[in-house]
Amino acid sequence: MAYTLGIDYGTNSVRALVVDVATGAELGVCVADYPSGHQGVLLNKNDHHLARQNPADHLSGLETSVRGALEQAKKNAGFNASAIIGIGVDTTGSSPIPVDAHNVPLALNPKWKDNLHAQCWLWKDHTSHQEAAAITKLATKHRPQYIAKCGNTYSSEWFWSKIWHCLKVAPDVFDAAHSWVELADFIPAVLAGVTDPLQVKRGICCAGHKALYSDEWNGLPDKEFLSLLDPKLAALRDRLYAKAHDATVAAGTLCPEWAQKLGLPAGIPIAIGEMDVHYGAIGSGIKEGVIVKAIGTSTCDCAVVAANKKVADIPGICGIVPGAILPGFYGVEAGQSAVGDIFKWFVEVVCQGNGALHGQLSQEAEAQRPGQSGLLALDWNNGNRTILVDPMLTGLLVGQTLYTTRAEIYRALIEGTAYGARAIIERLKEYGVPVDVVVCCGGIAEKSPFTMRLYADITGCTIRVAGSSQACALGAAVSAAVLAGKAKGGYATFPEAQQAMTSLKDVVYSPQAENQKIYNDLYRLYRQLHDAFGGVNKSSDLSDVMKELIRIKDAQNKTI
Amino acid sequence: MAYTLGIDYGTNSVRALVVDVATGAELGVCVADYPSGHQGVLLNKNDHHLARQNPADHLSGLETSVRGALEQAKKNAGFNASAIIGIGVDTTGSSPIPVDAHNVPLALNPKWKDNLHAQCWLWKDHTSHQEAAAITKLATKHRPQYIAKCGNTYSSEWFWSKIWHCLKVAPDVFDAAHSWVELADFIPAVLAGVTDPLQVKRGICCAGHKALYSDEWNGLPDKEFLSLLDPKLAALRDRLYAKAHDATVAAGTLCPEWAQKLGLPAGIPIAIGEMDVHYGAIGSGIKEGVIVKAIGTSTCDCAVVAANKKVADIPGICGIVPGAILPGFYGVEAGQSAVGDIFKWFVEVVCQGNGALHGQLSQEAEAQRPGQSGLLALDWNNGNRTILVDPMLTGLLVGQTLYTTRAEIYRALIEGTAYGARAIIERLKEYGVPVDVVVCCGGIAEKSPFTMRLYADITGCTIRVAGSSQACALGAAVSAAVLAGKAKGGYATFPEAQQAMTSLKDVVYSPQAENQKIYNDLYRLYRQLHDAFGGVNKSSDLSDVMKELIRIKDAQNKTI
Repeated sequence: MAYTLGIDYGTNSVRALVVDVATGAELGVCVADYPSGHQGVLLNKNDHHLARQNPADHLSGLETSVRGALEQAKKNAGFNASAIIGIGVDTTGSSPIPVDAHNVPLALNPKWKDNLHAQCWLWKDHTSHQEAAAITKLATKHRPQYIAKCGNTYSSEWFWSKIWHCLKVAPDVFDAAHSWVELADFIPAVLAGVTDPLQVKRGICCAGHKALYSDEWNGLPDKEFLSLLDPKLAALRDRLYAKAHDATVAAGTLCPEWAQKLGLPAGIPIAIGEMDVHYGAIGSGIKEGVIVKAIGTSTCDCAVVAANKKVADIPGICGIVPGAILPGFYGVEAGQSAVGDIFKWFVEVVCQGNGALHGQLSQEAEAQRPGQSGLLALDWNNGNRTILVDPMLTGLLVGQTLYTTRAEIYRALIEGTAYGARAIIERLKEYGVPVDVVVCCGGIAEKSPFTMRLYADITGCTIRVAGSSQACALGAAVSAAVLAGKAKGGYATFPEAQQAMTSLKDVVYSPQAENQKIYNDLYRLYRQLHDAFGGVNKSSDLSDVMKELIRIKDAQNKTI
Repeated sequence: MAYTLGIDYGTNSVRALVVDVATGAELGVCVADYPSGHQGVLLNKNDHHLARQNPADHLSGLETSVRGALEQAKKNAGFNASAIIGIGVDTTGSSPIPVDAHNVPLALNPKWKDNLHAQCWLWKDHTSHQEAAAITKLATKHRPQYIAKCGNTYSSEWFWSKIWHCLKVAPDVFDAAHSWVELADFIPAVLAGVTDPLQVKRGICCAGHKALYSDEWNGLPDKEFLSLLDPKLAALRDRLYAKAHDATVAAGTLCPEWAQKLGLPAGIPIAIGEMDVHYGAIGSGIKEGVIVKAIGTSTCDCAVVAANKKVADIPGICGIVPGAILPGFYGVEAGQSAVGDIFKWFVEVVCQGNGALHGQLSQEAEAQRPGQSGLLALDWNNGNRTILVDPMLTGLLVGQTLYTTRAEIYRALIEGTAYGARAIIERLKEYGVPVDVVVCCGGIAEKSPFTMRLYADITGCTIRVAGSSQACALGAAVSAAVLAGKAKGGYATFPEAQQAMTSLKDVVYSPQAENQKIYNDLYRLYRQLHDAFGGVNKSSDLSDVMKELIRIKDAQNKTI
């Protein structure tokens, strides 16, 4: 028997999963909630763009979750932790951490521990929207090739925007940081006992999608370009990395210290870190023709295209990076900045309800017919990641009367996210990415058949659901099994490993022609709003409305 | 001592008020809720446009409210019902009732009592939006002068739209109706014992504002025009009225039967019926330079301009009718289709809260600064009465994030109604109607200083609040005092009567320059949305969005 361990760092918690390499059976799982901040996220009540995470939570959660998963696995007859042949790690991203020369996060240093800027800059932090816009502008002028692969728009959620913003608002933190390491690279490096940031093996996944890294131009952006941002960023380039790797390369082997902490055999290989949804895509059986849609607080949509094909640059798509998901394939990443978060906001903040209210509203909403409420929502409460790549967009609801019910609004919000999903799928298809089926994973995919039916009717695609509830952790475990190799009880290739270790649930959601007809009309209206407020329709004067509202809001908040 | 009685028919109840003619002191008041339907309104759950009222409620409420008010007045030393010198009545409008040849509402006949179309067609009934659009189109082509005085757009809330719609959807009701009488004319006629619809004294207020009546073209629209709608409407013209009157003419004198029912002296004069807000304007001290804003479920804005001045036709203003409010003045009426109703919808339907929640949200909202939420709302949950005159518009909220609170939405909804108020005020000013001060009346004006402060900051006008909480009933009582005349203890003119009987509260809400600055920016954005979705901006493709959503909604509801 051989097992691998997949460790998945989410927004609010970290989970560890012990997997039987032969069958994909999940023998043990343990979730450790991050103790800091609001559900693990450090916030600033005067700036809703800010979202940070305490690296101490990452480390304590690592131990708690792995030990918990092993405890549970041990209840299975025949399981022994010594038969674990590899570890895979996935995390949110881009979530860079400022570290010292010993690869220790500044936030673990008492001097910096209460400084929000010294923490892990969580993926959904949007404080650096001005820097993102400036990078887009500078790159468009001086290095168009840099951003052609990420939809011609650099995001405030990404590596350089965040670091540059730190340099501006907290130069002391920037100066104290010897280097910056993505959480996805940091955890494997910790497990491998790497104590020099320059020795950290960086994954192509974060590097290519978030840091403008490409082998086409010698890695990270060149110093001349970085100097246009700030000479200090050009200097930082030497303290980052020269090369990033796909999942054929190990991040290292488990160091004795962490082997002991976790109760695992020292020396087992640690897979390169990838972003959660990339390993989630693997755990959901991604291959050409399959879009994997990880639906959680936000979504991430992944597709792969064989590396021997020519993939056009796709406007508004977050990234097209060779090897980012599966070795030998271009990884294509898109996503929606908020999905479950929008439903949660409506139920918890607006309706002041809880999980039971989700159920009740969902049931009432399901009894409605498409279009019956007269409502239409834009799904931009957290900005638009794809296809507009604009964090300065906000939510919109139209069609309310004096009789509009909560359940109607709830349904309209779900539909809004489905229209957003359709916009992404249509953009991918338009540029030649094959889409035969959409495989969804994550809690909403499993718990809400109603939502999945809406997604099928609205996108016009057949929707399947990943077999595992822990698709990200499972994908990390698959990567570990491939890295360990056939000789150790693993696999020679990803397709072999996916075939054995991943599955789909039996249920198939097919679009209903009658509903599709109505939703095609509604999607046309959604696109009118989308294009007018999102700036696609250049003849509309509404593209400034959301941004002006944010400008006024920011100004009014600053005067407090 | 002399007293008059003002009777005010609202949307959910009727109130009677006994007033001391010398001082305006209110000696007795009694509110009778309508027992039928939902808070007095008959609804159809499959058609939110429908709103009817049971005429039996009007009659039972008349007796209950007047008797109750007299009971209360009798607690005042010296009061005696025999010293009541006149009665004034105001009601919602346009709220026409189909009646038989004896002026008895069809709905009181067992044959029709359960037929929704045989009831009083309440002002806020929007079922006839197609007929309204057709009337606008036909009048624009054939009789532009007819609609020039009502903003070039005929409304689904008005007389002919409703009757024509009845003819189409319930021809049996139409055929059974000998005539149609506005509620404002019906109640005075009942009190006067008029049993022939042709003998009912009709008020210029409803006739001019809602039924295209004008002395300029011999009363109601001519038969040739009405035949373009339907020959049966042309035939109906002969069974309506030839002349409508201002408040210098009596509706009649109290008949013995009702004198006995109410415990009042028979033979006292009954003032011509006006719409609630018109008498409300009088009760709030309307004169040139004053806009009276009656803020309730919806608002009605009234202004007067001396009849010897030339008033231009004002696009989008509901009506400019000589004598409609004060004899000797043009009455100018505008309004917002929903104000309090929007706050009520949000608190009761969305938040599932009650009056206490209004208080809580209001308190939280008051702590916010202008623009701080980043939210902007259109106040169209019940359509737009002025300046777009379009019931097929709906609500819109933009700017939501994942952190948007209920109190922020609540404030944005209040602000939305204030922007709507500003659009009306600016339109009036633009066409030469003087606006020195805005006097608000109604529950919100009295109970929410916060809302009044927002209205001052957003409209840029000084806001005062009417002294009486029963401004409409008080205005009706003022009219009765003028009609009774000086010899009977009343007054010779309206200004004299208003001077003695009406007042303003001490509080003065002045615009705060600092807030005005922000709100000027926000109003500009409001107008961008307003013009794009409302069809003012002809280059925007969004003017069809709300209408298309309603079209799809209606189609989906019909297929049930």
